[in-house]
Amino acid sequence: GIHTQVGVMAKSKFEYVKQFETDDPCLQNCWIVVRIDGKAFHKFTDVHHYMKPNDERGLGLMTRAAQTVMADFSEVVLAYGQSDEFSFVFHKNCKLYNRRASKIMTNVVSLFASSFTLYWPRYFNTQELQYPPAFDARVVLYPSDDNLRDYLSWRQADCHINNLYNTCFWKLVQEKGLTPAQSQERLKGTLSSDKNELLYSQFNINYNNLPELYRKGTVLIRPRDAEAQSERETNNYRGYSASKKSERKPGSVVLHSDIIGKKFWEEHPYILNPKLYGS
Amino acid sequence: GIHTQVGVMAKSKFEYVKQFETDDPCLQNCWIVVRIDGKAFHKFTDVHHYMKPNDERGLGLMTRAAQTVMADFSEVVLAYGQSDEFSFVFHKNCKLYNRRASKIMTNVVSLFASSFTLYWPRYFNTQELQYPPAFDARVVLYPSDDNLRDYLSWRQADCHINNLYNTCFWKLVQEKGLTPAQSQERLKGTLSSDKNELLYSQFNINYNNLPELYRKGTVLIRPRDAEAQSERETNNYRGYSASKKSERKPGSVVLHSDIIGKKFWEEHPYILNPKLYGS
Amino acid sequence: GIHTQVGVMAKSKFEYVKQFETDDPCLQNCWIVVRIDGKAFHKFTDVHHYMKPNDERGLGLMTRAAQTVMADFSEVVLAYGQSDEFSFVFHKNCKLYNRRASKIMTNVVSLFASSFTLYWPRYFNTQELQYPPAFDARVVLYPSDDNLRDYLSWRQADCHINNLYNTCFWKLVQEKGLTPAQSQERLKGTLSSDKNELLYSQFNINYNNLPELYRKGTVLIRPRDAEAQSERETNNYRGYSASKKSERKPGSVVLHSDIIGKKFWEEHPYILNPKLYGS
Amino acid sequence: GIHTQVGVMAKSKFEYVKQFETDDPCLQNCWIVVRIDGKAFHKFTDVHHYMKPNDERGLGLMTRAAQTVMADFSEVVLAYGQSDEFSFVFHKNCKLYNRRASKIMTNVVSLFASSFTLYWPRYFNTQELQYPPAFDARVVLYPSDDNLRDYLSWRQADCHINNLYNTCFWKLVQEKGLTPAQSQERLKGTLSSDKNELLYSQFNINYNNLPELYRKGTVLIRPRDAEAQSERETNNYRGYSASKKSERKPGSVVLHSDIIGKKFWEEHPYILNPKLYGS
Repeated sequence: GIHTQVGVMAKSKFEYVKQFETDDPCLQNCWIVVRIDGKAFHKFTDVHHYMKPNDERGLGLMTRAAQTVMADFSEVVLAYGQSDEFSFVFHKNCKLYNRRASKIMTNVVSLFASSFTLYWPRYFNTQELQYPPAFDARVVLYPSDDNLRDYLSWRQADCHINNLYNTCFWKLVQEKGLTPAQSQERLKGTLSSDKNELLYSQFNINYNNLPELYRKGTVLIRPRDAEAQSERETNNYRGYSASKKSERKPGSVVLHSDIIGKKFWEEHPYILNPKLYGS
Repeated sequence: GIHTQVGVMAKSKFEYVKQFETDDPCLQNCWIVVRIDGKAFHKFTDVHHYMKPNDERGLGLMTRAAQTVMADFSEVVLAYGQSDEFSFVFHKNCKLYNRRASKIMTNVVSLFASSFTLYWPRYFNTQELQYPPAFDARVVLYPSDDNLRDYLSWRQADCHINNLYNTCFWKLVQEKGLTPAQSQERLKGTLSSDKNELLYSQFNINYNNLPELYRKGTVLIRPRDAEAQSERETNNYRGYSASKKSERKPGSVVLHSDIIGKKFWEEHPYILNPKLYGS
Repeated sequence: GIHTQVGVMAKSKFEYVKQFETDDPCLQNCWIVVRIDGKAFHKFTDVHHYMKPNDERGLGLMTRAAQTVMADFSEVVLAYGQSDEFSFVFHKNCKLYNRRASKIMTNVVSLFASSFTLYWPRYFNTQELQYPPAFDARVVLYPSDDNLRDYLSWRQADCHINNLYNTCFWKLVQEKGLTPAQSQERLKGTLSSDKNELLYSQFNINYNNLPELYRKGTVLIRPRDAEAQSERETNNYRGYSASKKSERKPGSVVLHSDIIGKKFWEEHPYILNPKLYGS
Repeated sequence: GIHTQVGVMAKSKFEYVKQFETDDPCLQNCWIVVRIDGKAFHKFTDVHHYMKPNDERGLGLMTRAAQTVMADFSEVVLAYGQSDEFSFVFHKNCKLYNRRASKIMTNVVSLFASSFTLYWPRYFNTQELQYPPAFDARVVLYPSDDNLRDYLSWRQADCHINNLYNTCFWKLVQEKGLTPAQSQERLKGTLSSDKNELLYSQFNINYNNLPELYRKGTVLIRPRDAEAQSERETNNYRGYSASKKSERKPGSVVLHSDIIGKKFWEEHPYILNPKLYGS
């Protein structure tokens, strides 16, 4: 019958095409960062009536999707998000999918996208999702702890700069009636100090008192790492060792801490400690 | 204030980390295939009570998600799906995202995943999605038309082989009361012809009469390409040329044709014709 | 003893570093071009008193080194050289070193460099090589025959353009006593036709009568391919087939033909014929 | 004339082929190791009557070629060689050729090969080089100092293991008259201690007294690094800082030290010090 034509025999004739597939392993002993970014979220936030400059529902949904990723991928030691982006840090010795970059980033980004879609109603209630959102993702490798911390600092500094600008921009539009073009013109060339001053003098806003969620973005870490400090005090380090790896708790804790300074890292030494990941 | 510490100045200090990002452009003049695959769909289909061996709702949802991808990415000339996988063929001269592999595959797979999730209720009605599904994706390059056709043949032959096996396997389980292990044992070492015979003699099923959706999988092409033959006959080719590129219609037509043989490609010469894609 | 410290046991402790090595296979079914380029040959040719604009000894030596490469790597179907560069074309189905790019290019470039050095005295007699020359190399993949031919045309067009310019430049310097700067100024903005006219009117030189070696560069092909035309006429194609692969002769034939036009490729159809390379 | 056909205009028509070239930058902030290996040196050493198990002329020539590489590439901080291989360590912040792997490894390997050939007569006198030697090369990245040191330890442990084996093997062949096959059989399954014992009891050789060149291989470092310890003692560290970078001396010092233990690295702290390379 016809099936012999497309049966096992035929299939084996075509299987040479598998040789065209290539592996893309990440260099060993480097931090693997997967950063996802919303595709055309300017339009997406307009269509879905996001509050400007920050929409708590939207940020909450992003965090919820990121937590789903952390729950599924135990190799993630920290995630950092702001605006329509999220970065996931896989530890240096991570063996997930033999460190194949494509496999890692596509699994992460598709899980993030489907979570974002599935949990949409929990954050936006009756306001319906108009179309399925897309995200891009990339893998970036950082050889040293300093490089990784500088990467995270770069994203958090970006959060601050954009939020300060956007806060001013939207205040001028929403409360002073400027058009977007006028608002942009007004802010052109201003320094951070000018913008702080503008908020204070014109709108009686002390920027430092705005929610940390907006100013610092969102940091997700593992429960154990979050509890580390107190645990340390209690246990005086006794009994805490790599052998406790199996106690690593699933799930994640939501923080809006500064991660540029030393304090955060001193309080959570477990995050970057390679001993805890089988190095 | 503290903000000068995390302001533009600070950010520029961290921006060197951007140098760690690398590009991954696809070789020019090659067909770009993005194949997505469901992650752990064995469990996913069990949890969601998929009919075995084929669930029309599940296959319909996969196709719906693939059509969303085709609607968004006009560079896709054909998509082929079966089971929990879908392959998207981007034409050789595609300039999308400067042919960056990561950018292409992550956008495709995340849009697919969010579409799958968003349109779930349209196919599964009141049966709820229990958790967000993930998909992996890979990019494979094929230099020649023959390589590309052999790739698609490989996937369609795989569809046939698996479907013939699964049809037998589930009949034995569902109608003869065999355990999965017994059913597997019964089929071990059988040829295609043995399985056809088994279906006919034991279950009075002529495999060839089963739905093409199951036996051939799903082929998505552009409306213009679908209409090409009749158009050709009508117009006798007059007026049909590369200059009509702009008429390429969005959306996609669903077929369950054989794409291993010549016939399909002779009837739809536009699909592989590089002249139509600005080569 | 101390040796147990650096013995097999110790070695195995260090062997994990092998995991940091990565493969870089060339995409299947693409032409593999290795192009080598002299490093700082402007200085090298000055130090070694090369004749300008063309030094027959230097060009002869480049060709000799390229022939050594062709003799060692039977997968090379054609090489093209001009000035201080040479391109080696490996056929599409070449399996050499599992198509690993690094392995291929470093073997080729090091053999080229040591040949250039070893055979130096045969071309420069008593004039000694002052220091060891270096070359860089790169691998470029071309999916189609047209792409490959366009690549070779690009290099030969480059040869022509540079040679026409250099011929004018050095005539003005050597025979009219212009300084290099004056000569450069004189030629600025001139068209090919202007330069031809300059050579004819000022130096009574018909550019077309200059040696093809200078105007066309050097093409190396296999003896069989060189003899193909006459063989074809004699045999009227009988008996000539892929089964004669084993008769492929080692060594290479030196030509200075035009490879931009069709004629060369029609006369040597064997060069691009995939049937001859086990496809 | 015909030249308009192959002139600037034509060239520009072909120049699209340049788009097929890709960059292969090494990840930032990683040690770049280029390891070269002789191609088919088993045959090469037979043809050229190398003394077994070690030929001082051959090892000297390898070192001479490596020194040429170090003289030309100031970014190399250390080189290690044994048998027919040499590894060159480029410092982490090296910007050479924008860290393009192909460019770095092909320049290194071709310079090594031409040096080997040019300086051959200085080591082998009237015994002529029979044919041009080839070497392959690869680039390997190491993110941490520990990884780099483990890499070098791996190579030096390999040197020791092979030399101990080869010393036994050739003694049995040269002094006991065993055939190579018999000698191999005699050594099968022996431990390091067995081989040490064999040398001592049968040939009255204390392995530890053999030349370090054979047992440890060859380490090349910069003169400054070699003088560092005494300088340090003299200067008591005063005045020694990154600002003295410009004093880094060209050339290289030949050592046969153990580089597996700490001592070497403590005595030459400058080698791995990133401050000295503009980090």
